[in-house]
Amino acid sequence: MSPYPQSPLMGQMMSQPLLISSIIEFVARHYGGNEIVSRRVEGDLHRYTYRDCHRRAKRLANALHGLGVRMGDRVATLAWNGYRHLEAYYAVSGSGAVLHTINPRLFPEQIAYISNHAEDQCLLFDLSFLPVVEAIAAQCHSVKHFVLMCERDRMPADSKIPDLLCYEDLIATHSDDYQWPLFDENSAATLCYTSGTTGNPKGALYSHRSTVLHAYGSAMPNALNVSAADTVLPVVPMFHVNAWGLPYSVPLSGAKMVFPGPALDGKSLYELFEAEKVTFSAGVPTVWLGLVNHMLQNNLRFSTFRRTVIGGAACPPALMDTLIDELDVEVIHAWGMTEMSPLGTTGGLQVRHLDLPKEAQRKILQKQGHAIYGVDMKIVDDEGKELPWDGSSYGHLLVKGPWVIARYYKDEGGEVLQDGWFATGDVSTIDADGYMQITDRSKDVIKSGGEWIGTIDLENLAMGHPAVLQAACIGVPHPKWDERPLLLVVRRPGHELSGAEVLAFMEGKVAKWWMPDDVLFIDALPMGATGKIQKNKLRELYRQHRLPTV
Amino acid sequence: MSPYPQSPLMGQMMSQPLLISSIIEFVARHYGGNEIVSRRVEGDLHRYTYRDCHRRAKRLANALHGLGVRMGDRVATLAWNGYRHLEAYYAVSGSGAVLHTINPRLFPEQIAYISNHAEDQCLLFDLSFLPVVEAIAAQCHSVKHFVLMCERDRMPADSKIPDLLCYEDLIATHSDDYQWPLFDENSAATLCYTSGTTGNPKGALYSHRSTVLHAYGSAMPNALNVSAADTVLPVVPMFHVNAWGLPYSVPLSGAKMVFPGPALDGKSLYELFEAEKVTFSAGVPTVWLGLVNHMLQNNLRFSTFRRTVIGGAACPPALMDTLIDELDVEVIHAWGMTEMSPLGTTGGLQVRHLDLPKEAQRKILQKQGHAIYGVDMKIVDDEGKELPWDGSSYGHLLVKGPWVIARYYKDEGGEVLQDGWFATGDVSTIDADGYMQITDRSKDVIKSGGEWIGTIDLENLAMGHPAVLQAACIGVPHPKWDERPLLLVVRRPGHELSGAEVLAFMEGKVAKWWMPDDVLFIDALPMGATGKIQKNKLRELYRQHRLPTV
Repeated sequence: MSPYPQSPLMGQMMSQPLLISSIIEFVARHYGGNEIVSRRVEGDLHRYTYRDCHRRAKRLANALHGLGVRMGDRVATLAWNGYRHLEAYYAVSGSGAVLHTINPRLFPEQIAYISNHAEDQCLLFDLSFLPVVEAIAAQCHSVKHFVLMCERDRMPADSKIPDLLCYEDLIATHSDDYQWPLFDENSAATLCYTSGTTGNPKGALYSHRSTVLHAYGSAMPNALNVSAADTVLPVVPMFHVNAWGLPYSVPLSGAKMVFPGPALDGKSLYELFEAEKVTFSAGVPTVWLGLVNHMLQNNLRFSTFRRTVIGGAACPPALMDTLIDELDVEVIHAWGMTEMSPLGTTGGLQVRHLDLPKEAQRKILQKQGHAIYGVDMKIVDDEGKELPWDGSSYGHLLVKGPWVIARYYKDEGGEVLQDGWFATGDVSTIDADGYMQITDRSKDVIKSGGEWIGTIDLENLAMGHPAVLQAACIGVPHPKWDERPLLLVVRRPGHELSGAEVLAFMEGKVAKWWMPDDVLFIDALPMGATGKIQKNKLRELYRQHRLPTV
Repeated sequence: MSPYPQSPLMGQMMSQPLLISSIIEFVARHYGGNEIVSRRVEGDLHRYTYRDCHRRAKRLANALHGLGVRMGDRVATLAWNGYRHLEAYYAVSGSGAVLHTINPRLFPEQIAYISNHAEDQCLLFDLSFLPVVEAIAAQCHSVKHFVLMCERDRMPADSKIPDLLCYEDLIATHSDDYQWPLFDENSAATLCYTSGTTGNPKGALYSHRSTVLHAYGSAMPNALNVSAADTVLPVVPMFHVNAWGLPYSVPLSGAKMVFPGPALDGKSLYELFEAEKVTFSAGVPTVWLGLVNHMLQNNLRFSTFRRTVIGGAACPPALMDTLIDELDVEVIHAWGMTEMSPLGTTGGLQVRHLDLPKEAQRKILQKQGHAIYGVDMKIVDDEGKELPWDGSSYGHLLVKGPWVIARYYKDEGGEVLQDGWFATGDVSTIDADGYMQITDRSKDVIKSGGEWIGTIDLENLAMGHPAVLQAACIGVPHPKWDERPLLLVVRRPGHELSGAEVLAFMEGKVAKWWMPDDVLFIDALPMGATGKIQKNKLRELYRQHRLPTV
């Protein structure tokens, strides 16, 4: 129901809800012969077409209905990127139920917490996760049906899970005669929980409308730029914010899809890229580091791979340089968050940048880029006053758009909007050309004498030193300045390094008052389930650290 | 109000209507410094930015409000492609009124008919159309305000039009302090009349939702593929189905826009393409013929131009060959209609076609291509039974989607849908890969002994003869076969040609029973206002023609 006034003259166009089922129906009809190739948990390659996928998704929809799943019910998955997971994407949402993708990297008790919070009715999971599910099944109180995504001959002889169902049995015993239902496009479609570095995980409950609009927006040339001429390998997991929407934007573009399954090491990825002639991919920086290292060590080059999206965390400049300069891969920096479905901005050069020197171009590519049409953004100070787009003023980044959440599932965390805008929790600049650059998380920014110090710049700078493997910068209490920066460094194995050397390396490359007051060497940085450094843990650990400047 | 059932669990995303104003607001904020360059009626070049365009559109919105224009009111334009026309696009629709673009190539009495039918409140027009508007002003009964789109010093000293207003005065005397209103996205946004080869012109009344979805769909890589790295020159007029949506899809992509004004001859276009470094364009075949001829005669080549969309009529194979082989321009065949906003399909090769021989590739490019995601299509026989997608079965082409009309404005023509599908009036095949190819208009197809003969193939074949300038094939009554094909040929100036020579040229390249029963030479083919051959006139003229086979 539209809360907006109607015109005395309404348009006279077909009324058709934006539903996720229209994507699989479209690709099966119009690009039905194009392939989906999956490396399975079992290690082998599975190939079939979008037409096959559609048929099996309809069988699964019938099977789920037979299990009692109804509109609005939650169906969870614990699965890698693969064809069965894709079938579940369309069968669950397409039939009006809600797909809840769970991150298997969470602790078992977190998985149980989320499953109970979501009130999942069914849980579909890959063979790899049988031990986890066996461990927590008794604590998942709402789950009536556990479905193991494998063939009958892979089913465990006896499992602790009561009435464990076999996915392929369900598919085999149900008809593909199924009509995707039509319903209000604002109905819930999928549910993703944030990683929850503070407090309990909170759910983002996407609608069909938001998912389809995000798919349109993210497929556009300024964004992911996916076409029927591409072969796409999503490295970003389907349990991580719906693999940045690729399970929707790739089929609607008719592109060939290649799923890597659990084999995300450099060697496995490289072999799959080459064998299946992948042209485009997307993933977090750590995966690219593994792939690039494998290739450089073995003097390998790509035959067909030309373009990748890197997001989830800022792409280290050295990684971007290697991909572009050594491996001839175009790098698209992307930024977003679970609360944004997730894509907000994508980077890239414009025509007028083509004559710039390489260094200047690289600086532009390092930025998080332009808002995708559909998303609006602004930066504000602590009082909510909008700040200029000059590339140097930085403030809290706020966003709005049809694929941004209005609240969390079950209203966790209460009101999340400020005058209709969602506060991302990031701090950024926006330049006069509209390029946004993240400088920090709002809660990580160091407030020194009323001014802000961005920790990401300091960390990137430190990581430019050849003996630095990882770096994290946090604010620690200071009697005069409120907070001052402390730099925590993990040394590269086999390298010697002193704090003074690190500081001397950074000197002159950043404002003097931004320089860390101290450098500490540690063995490892605490990492969360989605591969992000847990700075709240670091702040707790070093709250009492006495800076030499005190 | 959604007519579809809601789920017990609704998504929790921001509610934001899809409104045309969001496009100009987006581009002004995020790509505000990018240029719009217009060749004016006066002959000079005008340049400004999207930011300037947005400010002036807001001034115009205030001015229209001052003239009494309210939500749902129709505001008409008679104008070339230029920045003032673009301002009107956003000011009128953005403020909730309805933009009615009138084709100035219509006869004056048709323009008056349409204006009265639409009940236009205001008419904005270019200097070129002052004589036409003076001639019909008294017959345009609903129009309260006539606005001449020029500077004060160009205003006629005395005009027959009462209270003629000056566009630039309106802009100058109104503030750019204007907030685009929020309203139901299904509200009417623009109104375009079909050319109406039979009966009165009928209006397609687009909504904000349909326009924004069409803009998303048409900007995608599989379709027009417009990005911020492009410079786009829309040759297709803004009075012709909203220039195929480019006034929306180009700004939302942030691309530089170049408007040619009235100068659509080969020389003027070529000079503008070169001067403004145009990379992408779109237009009907005749315009490309003019441009290509000018270039070949003067041995000119493009410096930056790389890609064009050709639609409105099938691209003659020879033109496509010249563009691709001689001028290194990628040709995207597009098909659509006023009733579809207008884009339905776009052509192009996929990865697996890249190894095919050139001839085979060219055959694929000659097809109208794939449905854009959002559009579904099917072919049916006379009884409405769906026909197979095998590339040879042909039938009536039906379409549906959120940017397809459900009825005409004021219900002209009554019910237009068949089971929820819109009958395009085209006859086509669809192959197993989803490529659609128009073989004829339903009303032009020749029904011979219960079988169909497609006239477009016969015409293309005849036009392959070097002495044939134009060809049109129509069915004429035949006592035994119901109808048989008659080929009408316009000879190329200075060439001799007999009917027997034409038939000998065609022999063996088409099924024997498709061969025309007779060939007649005529001086010219009757053309409609949008440049299409008026076959209904030909059928009337030659209804009594006695075929030699009778």
